[in-house]
Amino acid sequence: MPMDTFTLRGYETDAHGRLSVPALMNILQESANRNAAEHGFGMADLTQFSQSALGWMLMRFRLRMYHYPVYGQTIQVMTYPTFVEKYFIYRDFRVLAEDGTLLADATSTWLVFSMEKRTMVPLPDFIRNLTLPSHPDPLPRLPLKPDFQTAPFSPILEKTVEVGWLSIDQNQHVNNVAYVQWLVECVEDETLKTRELAEIDLVYRTESHWHDRLRVQLAIDTSAEAPSDTRLHRIEHSGSGKEILLARTRWRTSD
Amino acid sequence: MPMDTFTLRGYETDAHGRLSVPALMNILQESANRNAAEHGFGMADLTQFSQSALGWMLMRFRLRMYHYPVYGQTIQVMTYPTFVEKYFIYRDFRVLAEDGTLLADATSTWLVFSMEKRTMVPLPDFIRNLTLPSHPDPLPRLPLKPDFQTAPFSPILEKTVEVGWLSIDQNQHVNNVAYVQWLVECVEDETLKTRELAEIDLVYRTESHWHDRLRVQLAIDTSAEAPSDTRLHRIEHSGSGKEILLARTRWRTSD
Repeated sequence: MPMDTFTLRGYETDAHGRLSVPALMNILQESANRNAAEHGFGMADLTQFSQSALGWMLMRFRLRMYHYPVYGQTIQVMTYPTFVEKYFIYRDFRVLAEDGTLLADATSTWLVFSMEKRTMVPLPDFIRNLTLPSHPDPLPRLPLKPDFQTAPFSPILEKTVEVGWLSIDQNQHVNNVAYVQWLVECVEDETLKTRELAEIDLVYRTESHWHDRLRVQLAIDTSAEAPSDTRLHRIEHSGSGKEILLARTRWRTSD
Repeated sequence: MPMDTFTLRGYETDAHGRLSVPALMNILQESANRNAAEHGFGMADLTQFSQSALGWMLMRFRLRMYHYPVYGQTIQVMTYPTFVEKYFIYRDFRVLAEDGTLLADATSTWLVFSMEKRTMVPLPDFIRNLTLPSHPDPLPRLPLKPDFQTAPFSPILEKTVEVGWLSIDQNQHVNNVAYVQWLVECVEDETLKTRELAEIDLVYRTESHWHDRLRVQLAIDTSAEAPSDTRLHRIEHSGSGKEILLARTRWRTSD
């Protein structure tokens, strides 16, 4: 099975000295880029087979952290597409320590969007007709609209962010990991200091651009079994109130 | 000569698709960590040879960019200490393309600080007495107090930043690359869109911490030969006005 190897760098760790979740998401998506290119449907391939410029967009992402690696540790990332439908392609990730311990896993849903119209389009035929590698146990497809998307949301913390130049990627919109950084920066101090992320589940709803003003909100998930361990997050355009991202996170006491 | 190899990842590039300067600084400092550890004066060694906890702190850094590499390109980083004095150790960096083209170089000045007292201390004897590897052409030591540190400074742009959790490193203070990100985000749009950084020269004056409010300022360098190509930057504590970072940047029209 194809595997990418990453030795963790100092700046990929946080104040606790452990791999930070945004750094891991960057690594996973880099691995996804490489894997898609190997299968012939990387960013460059999309444009080549189409009249108009197309891009990949992340719609759903759920990451579960089992053990946090530290500075200097080498991790192995396996990623592979699991299902393909008319509009969506699904991709799993497994992160292993060198001794084979499962450190994290993730599953994700991607769509193709038209760079010009800025809307989703059906997957091009050459992708829909892909013969996917078979994998013993794909993670179940994430629901397109998870329950927390419509759960009651009473903000207990709110911040405003202006989208900066360095948060914009080559698609000329905000890189999807930037939202996760903003979401983490809008969590209570006590949680950041004494807990670690056990799980993050993300729904990307629309894009945002350079200089946009965004409102980042935090709420307790009162519908959860253990509300004290669970948070809801919302990022919206500050003016229109249009939803950009919804998320649920689960936190556990760190070692 | 020892050499680290890095294949550029998607998220290390900016909206132009080229390696971003903060991403390169992260890579260079990672390479410096590894090199210091190989020479026996890495972060871990500092503490081992001392009664009190010590840390490395960057005081001066100047980077010159000759050619910007792009996504997927492999770069080679060479770094080595060049001079050692009572309080300071100097380190150079060279960044090469695979065909040997010089892409960037940098030189830097580091000191050791006491984690407890948060002040600089003389370099421990085992570092002062190091036999440094000899290199054909070390870059000249940067002046401790460069001329732009006392140049007239009339802000044309100003932003306020609150230090977030993800900007804090294991020393419990702001990571030095975070300041460079804030400095870039406080540059006029036209410069970011149409130009590229040719040179950045940094003076780190004091540290800052989680939740500190910082004022980031931009000025034209009227003392420069070509003021339109040169900018001055200043980051200070918002309340006390205490200087944290001063910088000069030079920008050129990008290809």
